[in-house]
Amino acid sequence: MIRDLRICFVGDSFVAGAGDETALGWVGRVTAAAWQRGVALTAYNLGVRRDTSADLRRRAEPEVLARLLGAGDAKAVVFGFGANDCTLEDDMPRVPPEASVENAVALLAWAAARWPVLMLGPPPLAHDAAHDARAAALSSRFAAVCEGMDIPFLDTHGPLSGIAAWRNGALRGDGVHPDGAGYAALAALVEQWPAWRNLTRP
Amino acid sequence: MIRDLRICFVGDSFVAGAGDETALGWVGRVTAAAWQRGVALTAYNLGVRRDTSADLRRRAEPEVLARLLGAGDAKAVVFGFGANDCTLEDDMPRVPPEASVENAVALLAWAAARWPVLMLGPPPLAHDAAHDARAAALSSRFAAVCEGMDIPFLDTHGPLSGIAAWRNGALRGDGVHPDGAGYAALAALVEQWPAWRNLTRP
Repeated sequence: MIRDLRICFVGDSFVAGAGDETALGWVGRVTAAAWQRGVALTAYNLGVRRDTSADLRRRAEPEVLARLLGAGDAKAVVFGFGANDCTLEDDMPRVPPEASVENAVALLAWAAARWPVLMLGPPPLAHDAAHDARAAALSSRFAAVCEGMDIPFLDTHGPLSGIAAWRNGALRGDGVHPDGAGYAALAALVEQWPAWRNLTRP
Repeated sequence: MIRDLRICFVGDSFVAGAGDETALGWVGRVTAAAWQRGVALTAYNLGVRRDTSADLRRRAEPEVLARLLGAGDAKAVVFGFGANDCTLEDDMPRVPPEASVENAVALLAWAAARWPVLMLGPPPLAHDAAHDARAAALSSRFAAVCEGMDIPFLDTHGPLSGIAAWRNGALRGDGVHPDGAGYAALAALVEQWPAWRNLTRP
């Protein structure tokens, strides 16, 4: 009997895989890779475009519970958000960094009390250098939060900033979201992440 | 500018693509095909394993609103459920057919008042002939409901019952859910469906 593992991926458009012409996104790619390793992974993709950490606090709890309650033994939650918090509206970020940290702590604490939890930081934003710098700074704050809570954190901003497939995909697409090649680069980072491999071991 | 279309797929494990080693399911396959036709389709997969029509009535509304409210002009909802309603527990279906019809009417009416709506009937259940017969009967009742509400309905039970890839995939897997080849057969039915092609035209 192969292992029945169910994971909710909670986050924004980058979790949803927006812009990916293959319809896989990074979540679909790492899910298919888990099947190849002999894990029957059910991936519930709860990424929503434009969602901030504040939006996630409103919907994550009922959506995750509807999928993981009473659903076998092996379950987990993977978070990925932050980019939309840093978007400016009327010269102010949609969610100020202090509130983003507070939201992250609340989301992570709720989930980690119930299941194994991992978190990905926001990826690079190729269309706007100032927005990108805010995302990098927020990623560092999230890394510190996760370290304090003993939750594995994957910095995607640093590595993807040096990968042409990510930036070029975004520039070919809507300017923000990469294409399938960009998501493949992000999926490769997740695949190499020991915390992910441990979570999805056969 | 290519067309920005966002669709919520609301349903059960067959909508979620459970058992598909490629992580695409039929939803991922028809989404990738839409991109190939020049439609930037954001697919929100809201399929949850074991969900009945009663479960969907509890969660569909907030989950769909969180994804479609204020999200551009082109939006739609596609439903697919019924198989779990017909599962016996203590010799009774989890949801009796009359309640399934009532739930379907409520879900369809709510969504159709806001967006274009399509519905797929439950697929064949290879593991249990009696369960399969109940699903076929429920599919016919859903077809009549949709006809009365002028909502396009796709019978998947009839066509897939004659397609070896569906049955063989289920028998190779957990007995209920097909593998990628089975989901590809279902995706091909959806791709040939005029209502789907009209919804996803470039």
